[in-house]
Amino acid sequence: MLENDYYSQENHGPYTLFNLGDFKLEDGGMIKNCQLAFTTFGKLNPQKSNAILMTTWYSGTSKIIEQVYVGKDHAINPDKYFIIVVNQIGNGLSTSPHNIPTPNGMALFPKVQIGDDVRAQHKLITEMFDLDSLALIVGGSMGAQQTWEWAVRYPEMVKRAAAIAGTAKNTSHDFLFTKTLNEAITSDPAWENGFYKKSNAVCEGLRRHADLWSVMGYSTEMFKQELWRDIGFSSPEEFCEGFTQAYFAPMDPNNLLCLAWKWQRGDVSRITGGDLEKALGRITAKMYVMPINTDMFFPPKDCEDNQKMVANSELRVIETSWGHLGLLGMDPLYIEQIDRHLEELLAASV
Amino acid sequence: MLENDYYSQENHGPYTLFNLGDFKLEDGGMIKNCQLAFTTFGKLNPQKSNAILMTTWYSGTSKIIEQVYVGKDHAINPDKYFIIVVNQIGNGLSTSPHNIPTPNGMALFPKVQIGDDVRAQHKLITEMFDLDSLALIVGGSMGAQQTWEWAVRYPEMVKRAAAIAGTAKNTSHDFLFTKTLNEAITSDPAWENGFYKKSNAVCEGLRRHADLWSVMGYSTEMFKQELWRDIGFSSPEEFCEGFTQAYFAPMDPNNLLCLAWKWQRGDVSRITGGDLEKALGRITAKMYVMPINTDMFFPPKDCEDNQKMVANSELRVIETSWGHLGLLGMDPLYIEQIDRHLEELLAASV
Repeated sequence: MLENDYYSQENHGPYTLFNLGDFKLEDGGMIKNCQLAFTTFGKLNPQKSNAILMTTWYSGTSKIIEQVYVGKDHAINPDKYFIIVVNQIGNGLSTSPHNIPTPNGMALFPKVQIGDDVRAQHKLITEMFDLDSLALIVGGSMGAQQTWEWAVRYPEMVKRAAAIAGTAKNTSHDFLFTKTLNEAITSDPAWENGFYKKSNAVCEGLRRHADLWSVMGYSTEMFKQELWRDIGFSSPEEFCEGFTQAYFAPMDPNNLLCLAWKWQRGDVSRITGGDLEKALGRITAKMYVMPINTDMFFPPKDCEDNQKMVANSELRVIETSWGHLGLLGMDPLYIEQIDRHLEELLAASV
Repeated sequence: MLENDYYSQENHGPYTLFNLGDFKLEDGGMIKNCQLAFTTFGKLNPQKSNAILMTTWYSGTSKIIEQVYVGKDHAINPDKYFIIVVNQIGNGLSTSPHNIPTPNGMALFPKVQIGDDVRAQHKLITEMFDLDSLALIVGGSMGAQQTWEWAVRYPEMVKRAAAIAGTAKNTSHDFLFTKTLNEAITSDPAWENGFYKKSNAVCEGLRRHADLWSVMGYSTEMFKQELWRDIGFSSPEEFCEGFTQAYFAPMDPNNLLCLAWKWQRGDVSRITGGDLEKALGRITAKMYVMPINTDMFFPPKDCEDNQKMVANSELRVIETSWGHLGLLGMDPLYIEQIDRHLEELLAASV
């Protein structure tokens, strides 16, 4: 276990831990006493028909999902729905490289797939909350990968699904981008093959990793329009340092690498022998596929190609100049669009 | 001087050296016995009205310009035109960090601006060839930066100009992308502050730098359509290794950093006190601005914004899924479009 205050209850809570016991992984191996961190809002109705599951993205936790997407003024309204926000394995709140006891910690943490997360989340919502259906599952980026996987794996449970800025099967371009993120970290001599002394020892690698996010995570238009001014910065350099670098700096490098490995291999067709059309043909949910128009690595075209293979689906493109990281909610018009689409989806009879 | 066979006459020649003498730089300092490497095709007519100047991009030399753009079956036809392909300072053929004697070699090489190159090229074509006009200046990427600079600095000499995939003033997003390229190199411990023992000592840094090019230099669509198959590769990994990494591997790191520094600061408004409209208002050439539709860092929008400020100009978008590095000519339809536009431009009366 490596001390890291960033992932504390103070910063990211309150969250609750659900113990999965010894959790077997799809690629072999297992996680002993695997724990999923989650938080809930609102109340489950007697018919248990108002549950929404929300998933997390690379580096994200339940806290930012709550801050950006959940509230009385949002589609994801705790007055109407029982909302479970679940942290993916490796994100620092759920069982992760930095918080698991030896001998499986840090660089020895086993490889986890999106499918593992979805199976773990299935146990959480069935065993802990006795749910047999979800009114909606929604997530962005890696959260969208989990959303796709849920809709394919458990079609009988998923009434509605919304995949924001993420694909059902990761592309080779996206795999490559993620590889450069990983190598920005692992090329730092302080990385020491994953057995660094403190999380922040790898600060140079984390900084370069953050800069790659600044290049690919927003958009050329965002920089052109100097939208960083809207969130209080006075130059692009100050924005890259004060926003992107500062965001990633306190995180644990092995946690990020665990998530990246999973992201690179996100692929719903793993359970259909590589047949993507067959996998997406399993989906019975009413589904909105919601790419971001300026996304540089989950571009609308890739998301649309997936959407076309889903029977009861619609493409709803979100317009913002903030690119992929528009997910973080800096653009008020972004969240307005998300809310409008999700409200419509939640109102749709299924 | 650092031995590096890559830049030899055998690989990149035949090329000729023009000695500028002691060449003063815009940001201070000078290069002693500064040499411009160039190569020519075709014959200058008696009226000296058929000269075309072609410039080079980051990492490129006169050789690839010749191979992709010059020939009897191209618009840049040596049967009709006198074609000068000039290598920019720092590209390894002209005076560069790797081939200059101490004490100014390697990391001590002075900082060069696009404006320095254009002034040096002006000396070459006036002193060596006694030209007082250019029928056309054309270049891609950093070559486009030089093209813009030429049209602004020497409007009376430039009859026609074609800027392919490059802007008149570099954007902050592009600056940041280039910063990540640089840091991929300089974060390699073998870099040793620019005083590595051999060019290929920094192979890990160069490899990571190449991977960033693979992410940003092509396009998501190129990977999606698996166009790397068209040039003989059987997987994206093999393509990234056998094409992009192999392309950059033999190059000198300080040379690349010299070019990148110049690229980051490309800005025709340096001579008009930062007034871009005023600078572009100086252009009298008939000009085609030719962005590549899938370019991830010189996107069409940025090029169009520049084009709109040029009186006698047209936007001619080139369509290819190969992204920015479509410049290298892998797509036969790319060069067909370039030829069609340049033929039209060359035929236009001015």
